[in-house]
Amino acid sequence: MRLAKIIGTVTATAKDAALTGAPLLVADMIDAKGKVIAAGHVAIDGCGAGVGDTVLIAQGSAARVAQGRATLPTDAAVVAIVDDISLS
Amino acid sequence: MRLAKIIGTVTATAKDAALTGAPLLVADMIDAKGKVIAAGHVAIDGCGAGVGDTVLIAQGSAARVAQGRATLPTDAAVVAIVDDISLS
Amino acid sequence: MRLAKIIGTVTATAKDAALTGAPLLVADMIDAKGKVIAAGHVAIDGCGAGVGDTVLIAQGSAARVAQGRATLPTDAAVVAIVDDISLS
Amino acid sequence: MRLAKIIGTVTATAKDAALTGAPLLVADMIDAKGKVIAAGHVAIDGCGAGVGDTVLIAQGSAARVAQGRATLPTDAAVVAIVDDISLS
Amino acid sequence: MRLAKIIGTVTATAKDAALTGAPLLVADMIDAKGKVIAAGHVAIDGCGAGVGDTVLIAQGSAARVAQGRATLPTDAAVVAIVDDISLS
Repeated sequence: MRLAKIIGTVTATAKDAALTGAPLLVADMIDAKGKVIAAGHVAIDGCGAGVGDTVLIAQGSAARVAQGRATLPTDAAVVAIVDDISLS
Repeated sequence: MRLAKIIGTVTATAKDAALTGAPLLVADMIDAKGKVIAAGHVAIDGCGAGVGDTVLIAQGSAARVAQGRATLPTDAAVVAIVDDISLS
Repeated sequence: MRLAKIIGTVTATAKDAALTGAPLLVADMIDAKGKVIAAGHVAIDGCGAGVGDTVLIAQGSAARVAQGRATLPTDAAVVAIVDDISLS
Repeated sequence: MRLAKIIGTVTATAKDAALTGAPLLVADMIDAKGKVIAAGHVAIDGCGAGVGDTVLIAQGSAARVAQGRATLPTDAAVVAIVDDISLS
Repeated sequence: MRLAKIIGTVTATAKDAALTGAPLLVADMIDAKGKVIAAGHVAIDGCGAGVGDTVLIAQGSAARVAQGRATLPTDAAVVAIVDDISLS
């Protein structure tokens, strides 16, 4: 998974019908210290995440491994909201 | 998914038979502010998107998760046309 | 899919048996204006493409979505030969 | 697979239920000489790995190819703890 | 697939049981002229490849498309040993 910071949301009227009602979160992929590594990603929410949260995003087919997500045409899903990152 | 801007179209006579009739859109992957991050991508359209639209593109096997797309040899599909990106 | 230019071929005697007879094309991933973005890719041909052609390459599991390709251990296949790229 | 160094752990209360109890390890992808190539990755542990270990991480659907991992929404798993890297 | 040069081997005692006996090869991804593009990759061998060989590596689920490899938690496999690269 990738560490990411949720920085916004996307609204879209014309979309794949399966995405109706799914929150679309804009995410910056970050490293463990919060430095942005990759921008322009959008993920489906699976944990009640919102703007400002640090999260874990599962990419690829992993994004669809959860009840109710198998038929979503998405390649990214928030699978955890990070409480703490402990570095040695 | 990735935020992207549709910048053109591709025409191809010799192609996989399953792609017949499928619009092939040239897309620049962008960040939330419109800056181009990755070029040279081509996506199948699933939403009636056209040149100039800002869209969401699903990559990998997600591109084939939609009625009628399971047999398309594509790794990228437009799954939403973006109305608005709200950044905090 | 990625836009790519076919720049050569690979020959290999020792290989996975399923690849026997499959043309192995060396491809440079390019942007819509022909600038090389990523080199060192090799794709199976699915369209009769040859050196000098501009093509579309499907990556990942998409490369195996076509009759006869499901059992090929490949992650890249030429799925279209590009006639024209129209940019706005 | 990628060579990686485990540099920390992530704790998360709100998460996909399937991840309950799964160790979440922060990993820096490295080259064979230990130089960091990509940061910000988090992997499920499958080998008893801990902070400081050099490991192999399988990405994508490979991360879910193991008994008990098929239903985990993860795209990265530690599949080996490296004893030695021998370079010619 | 990616062109790659095998530069070493990895030994690992603690590993996923399915990897027992599988050669773990360290590979530098290269372009068609031998320039290193990406380091730190490790692939399962499927062709009897060894250090010094130039090979083709299939990534992602393609790595598990071969008899006996479906249950290996790997995302990279050597699928051909390159005899010659012909560039136009």
